Amino acid sequence: MLKTIVLPVALIGAFAGAHADEGQWQPHQLPQLKAELKRIGIAIPADKLADLGKHPMSAIVSLGGCSASFVSDAGLVVTNHHCAYGAVQRNSTPEHNYISNGFLAKTRADELPGGPNALVYVTDKLENVSERVLKGLNPAMSGRARHEEVESRIKALIAECETDKMYRCSVPSFHRGMEYYRIRQMMIRDVRLVYAPSDKIGNFGGDVDNYEWPRHTGDYAFLRAYVGKDGRPADPSPDNVPYRSKDFLVVSAEGLKNGDPILLAGYPGRTSRYKLPAEIRAARDVSFPARVAELQADLDAIAAATKGDEALVVRYASVVKSINNVLKKTKGLLDGFARKDVAAIKDVQDAELRAWLVKHPQASVSPTLMADLDAVIAADMALGDEEFAWSVATNSDLLKSARTVFRLALERQKEDALRESGYQQRDLSFIKARLTRLEQSFSAGVDQGRFSAGLQRYAALPAQTHPQGLDALLPAPDAVAALYQQSQLGDTAKRLALLEQDAAAIAKSDDAFLKLAVKLHTVAKSLEERRKEVDGNLERVIPQYMQAVIAWKQSQGKPVYPDANSTLRVTYGTVAPYSPRDGLSKGPFTTVEGIVEKHTSKEPFVVPEALTAAVKAKRYGQFRDPALGTVPVNFLTSADTTGGNSGSAVMNRRGELIGLNFDSTYESITKDWYFDRDITRAIHLDIRYMLWVMQEVDHADNLLKEMTIKYPRK
Amino acid sequence: MLKTIVLPVALIGAFAGAHADEGQWQPHQLPQLKAELKRIGIAIPADKLADLGKHPMSAIVSLGGCSASFVSDAGLVVTNHHCAYGAVQRNSTPEHNYISNGFLAKTRADELPGGPNALVYVTDKLENVSERVLKGLNPAMSGRARHEEVESRIKALIAECETDKMYRCSVPSFHRGMEYYRIRQMMIRDVRLVYAPSDKIGNFGGDVDNYEWPRHTGDYAFLRAYVGKDGRPADPSPDNVPYRSKDFLVVSAEGLKNGDPILLAGYPGRTSRYKLPAEIRAARDVSFPARVAELQADLDAIAAATKGDEALVVRYASVVKSINNVLKKTKGLLDGFARKDVAAIKDVQDAELRAWLVKHPQASVSPTLMADLDAVIAADMALGDEEFAWSVATNSDLLKSARTVFRLALERQKEDALRESGYQQRDLSFIKARLTRLEQSFSAGVDQGRFSAGLQRYAALPAQTHPQGLDALLPAPDAVAALYQQSQLGDTAKRLALLEQDAAAIAKSDDAFLKLAVKLHTVAKSLEERRKEVDGNLERVIPQYMQAVIAWKQSQGKPVYPDANSTLRVTYGTVAPYSPRDGLSKGPFTTVEGIVEKHTSKEPFVVPEALTAAVKAKRYGQFRDPALGTVPVNFLTSADTTGGNSGSAVMNRRGELIGLNFDSTYESITKDWYFDRDITRAIHLDIRYMLWVMQEVDHADNLLKEMTIKYPRK
Repeated sequence: MLKTIVLPVALIGAFAGAHADEGQWQPHQLPQLKAELKRIGIAIPADKLADLGKHPMSAIVSLGGCSASFVSDAGLVVTNHHCAYGAVQRNSTPEHNYISNGFLAKTRADELPGGPNALVYVTDKLENVSERVLKGLNPAMSGRARHEEVESRIKALIAECETDKMYRCSVPSFHRGMEYYRIRQMMIRDVRLVYAPSDKIGNFGGDVDNYEWPRHTGDYAFLRAYVGKDGRPADPSPDNVPYRSKDFLVVSAEGLKNGDPILLAGYPGRTSRYKLPAEIRAARDVSFPARVAELQADLDAIAAATKGDEALVVRYASVVKSINNVLKKTKGLLDGFARKDVAAIKDVQDAELRAWLVKHPQASVSPTLMADLDAVIAADMALGDEEFAWSVATNSDLLKSARTVFRLALERQKEDALRESGYQQRDLSFIKARLTRLEQSFSAGVDQGRFSAGLQRYAALPAQTHPQGLDALLPAPDAVAALYQQSQLGDTAKRLALLEQDAAAIAKSDDAFLKLAVKLHTVAKSLEERRKEVDGNLERVIPQYMQAVIAWKQSQGKPVYPDANSTLRVTYGTVAPYSPRDGLSKGPFTTVEGIVEKHTSKEPFVVPEALTAAVKAKRYGQFRDPALGTVPVNFLTSADTTGGNSGSAVMNRRGELIGLNFDSTYESITKDWYFDRDITRAIHLDIRYMLWVMQEVDHADNLLKEMTIKYPRK
Repeated sequence: MLKTIVLPVALIGAFAGAHADEGQWQPHQLPQLKAELKRIGIAIPADKLADLGKHPMSAIVSLGGCSASFVSDAGLVVTNHHCAYGAVQRNSTPEHNYISNGFLAKTRADELPGGPNALVYVTDKLENVSERVLKGLNPAMSGRARHEEVESRIKALIAECETDKMYRCSVPSFHRGMEYYRIRQMMIRDVRLVYAPSDKIGNFGGDVDNYEWPRHTGDYAFLRAYVGKDGRPADPSPDNVPYRSKDFLVVSAEGLKNGDPILLAGYPGRTSRYKLPAEIRAARDVSFPARVAELQADLDAIAAATKGDEALVVRYASVVKSINNVLKKTKGLLDGFARKDVAAIKDVQDAELRAWLVKHPQASVSPTLMADLDAVIAADMALGDEEFAWSVATNSDLLKSARTVFRLALERQKEDALRESGYQQRDLSFIKARLTRLEQSFSAGVDQGRFSAGLQRYAALPAQTHPQGLDALLPAPDAVAALYQQSQLGDTAKRLALLEQDAAAIAKSDDAFLKLAVKLHTVAKSLEERRKEVDGNLERVIPQYMQAVIAWKQSQGKPVYPDANSTLRVTYGTVAPYSPRDGLSKGPFTTVEGIVEKHTSKEPFVVPEALTAAVKAKRYGQFRDPALGTVPVNFLTSADTTGGNSGSAVMNRRGELIGLNFDSTYESITKDWYFDRDITRAIHLDIRYMLWVMQEVDHADNLLKEMTIKYPRK
């Protein structure tokens, strides 16, 4: 049969031409890469690296969206400045502007509460539960039924794991549904701010330098994890004690040089390395360009609504920053696709796999798969268009809040285990935190401008992408203003109070946004059910291909890493410059002199005077790099990272902390879809710069003393 | 006395920290640099390099504004595409668009006339005539009297030299009037276009890439010098024969690599390395910013007047290009001054010289020099402001033409030897060529717009910079239109006919622009006489300092090179990348793949299909660089160049042609005032790229055969 099937299996992604540097590996895969790790010079045995309970993996933690690591036995955590920014911001006042001036707790008593969003997750246990999730699923089930059955098994696995309340568990899918692992994490919820440099250091270059090189950002900050006296996670309390982090990373000021190997461990969020060529083409030609236009239009709407009102500009600054970040990333992806025909490359890999499959038939590849795949991918794309249109039409924070509380009320009618994931008892604190946080970045006038502009853009989208029944339910753009007058959801206390109300009460409410949310619910639910159907079908079809791919690669002796999914991963690479264009070379290091060179006296390029003085006086201390003759600031490596890797430990061959990951170069953005070794570079903070600022600028002597620091031999 | 004099002698320029690469040396100075030349690896004896009659200097020629070299014994000359552009342009028609399609003469009979501006100057003899120019000048003379006496001696020296009509002679000053050399050149005036690639190669990157790196310009073209059958220069004629260039450069395709030494020979135009700190500060703070604003305003006026009329846009394209070039260069100088406090650096050098002079008093340094210098520099700057205002007020091509013909008529009333330099018999052909050439880049409407806008800007300049009496003579901006209706100077034949008229006839003319020129003459003459006074004083004062500087440097064993003055110079350096910013490195090579990478299908980034095809097929021939794995296009060296060095031969250690100089990087622009070795890089065409295009794209087999080419050993 295989001879007649044309398999579009470019899901094999970049690993078809696998290189030393590509791969966000699950720690347990590392023993398969033993020879490679040894070749590049990693001194830690692969078996030890694979063990989550052993150093150094035991020192690597997640902050939920960011990565970090312990650097003392008393729960001291180092991460990026931008990952601790929320904690700095919530403690800042006009009198104590810690954003601009930095903050340093000279004693533990001075450490400041990080707030409800400051969490430290310590991964504790990992089990392959694929069999329990997948066993005995009837291949004839509908997509939706399959998806719901899988979800229900996952919920049961999580509930079983979370019987001990000190843990938070999850069961993410790997290889697009081929495997499932249950991950148990201790969630520490009393996390305090210990030290953050001024944003003139921690956010030097700001949005201008985001995704750019040359880079000079001191993107680091320190937190501390606190637990109850019993050693178990506890609500924030003065009685809590620092978490005993028996394993922590030694900090090495010995530095590294061009060509040196590095290890990087953290929690990368999401990659799409195994997309099919049709999916790549749809993203490149349709959905990404549409997304760019939409993000830009939303930014324009915000700009128009905040113009001339400095307070509003500040209120929406973080929203704008985050939209800009996605916009730049999406543009970077499109630029990358324009530069390199990734779809065509995957076509070739596809053909190679097909040729191999002809000679090595796999039991898992059935004759109907081809047609199935075509159908579900087409369905996925068509549904994606409708979901996009829906998101354009519902671009209002108040509407989203209203939908959340109504949906929660509906789910609460069921017993907890049956509730939709995201609306269970275990999710309540997150929902509450989200609805609370809105307070800081919301204004009715701006929200109204965004909603109204979104409705106008929605109207201009192709009719076939309008979800069925939606048009009749939406307000006219010029009727939007009235909704805001007839709603109290902008009031945080009232918004939070709704979390307690039942569905019937909400359905009877005369709050305009609650009424709208109730009205839109059927359409939303229908989209959601169709999504489950599509996802269920994808989850049934694609893993069969992944098995073929893995078999193929195995026949070549090459292991296959799964797409990133916010679970702990290890990547390795080397310190390396790159050439973005013929005749031009970037990196691998920048130096403190480059900071002074960038100084313009205008944000984001204002250098603190103490730093300038130290540079001018050449007070390099023990942090002078012998080759550079000065203190390095940032450096580039070929490591394989993505969003979520912010704050990841960058370690030398002995597993000592020599850097913090915090960004990628613009040309690298395409790596989420295709890893091009020649141009993909992650941007790291050189730990020598951090130590130098701590010593010469901020005088954080207490922390320098608390950490175990290896200085270079004289 | 010296103890009490504060000497502002920063005229010592950059050579206070002299480096291997700095210095535009007079060939006769090279024996002093013997050890240095040997150290970097130059194999040609310094004594041989110093001899203008010997290879390789005997193969180096000037085109008047550009440099070039002979590459066969039959007068074949290679230079930059932009230096031969006029010859290409004048032969182009809509039917035979040699600009866009390139031109290749397959036989000598096919070679095309280069036109009156295509000239080849072969330097033949050089004599130090300082004594004849300077001997017995009375130190008490006024500046003007001194200047006129020097001019008169120079004119006599030139006349004496030009008794044989085959030579053109000049007596430029060196070290700001300290020395004078008489230079005798054979001026060949039948110069034909042999071969120019398409401007898609020769001007690839156009204005966008001007002064930029990475660069991919094939900036080369071939001319041929023709003489009469007697071997002497002759007017263009079909009877002429190729000039017998017994010495010519061997072309080496052996290539060069990072770190290799190079020699560069050509005719650099003008540098200002020996300016005083006060002069630097005036340029940086006043005159250059004013010039930038003025050039930009003039560009705006041209844009406004040509808007919507494509024919006018084309007509003014070369004017706009040339203004843009000066604008970019001036901005580059200001950026450089902002980056590095050159005046402060010169203050320090100044102090060092002063300290030395205290210990080693020089007979030439008199107690009044300090006051003299202060006074003449102040006078120079004040007069410079008036001259600038004058140039703003008289920004009209018709007015300039009218002033030229009137002035010529006035000078013709004197005997030739007494006429002002530039208006003698020997200058007539150049004046005529200039008045003729205007035809190609003039439109009354645009000229009117520029003149009128200039008058408005003049009115806004500080009153103290307005030359005395000028305001009353200038037309009101809105009266300018009438002048154009009442003038016939826009007609080329009528403009040229005026060259024959005497001053009385012109004074009686009712042509509006002639009337204006006559009216303005007194003011112009007064500015000119004051300029002579200032220059005469500078020429008396500054050489005394130069002698002190040279004595000081000599005491350190360091020779001193004079500022560039369009005479033959030699510089040397090494192939080297540079870092324009911390974390970024540029060069030293670009490759043919980079050309394809830059292709946008829009000028100036359109790559000829034949070139793309050759690159894609990797048809590198014998021109593949082993380290790069492909054909190099442009490269960077640390050689010391400036405007006028366009087309200069870049030679390897054996004096073989391996490149053509054609530009500098943006960061290097400051070098005209201060040579900063770290960032100063000249941009060269790699001769392998030229040979590759000739072989693989343009099939210029006849020329490849005519040249003597050394290919790399296989």
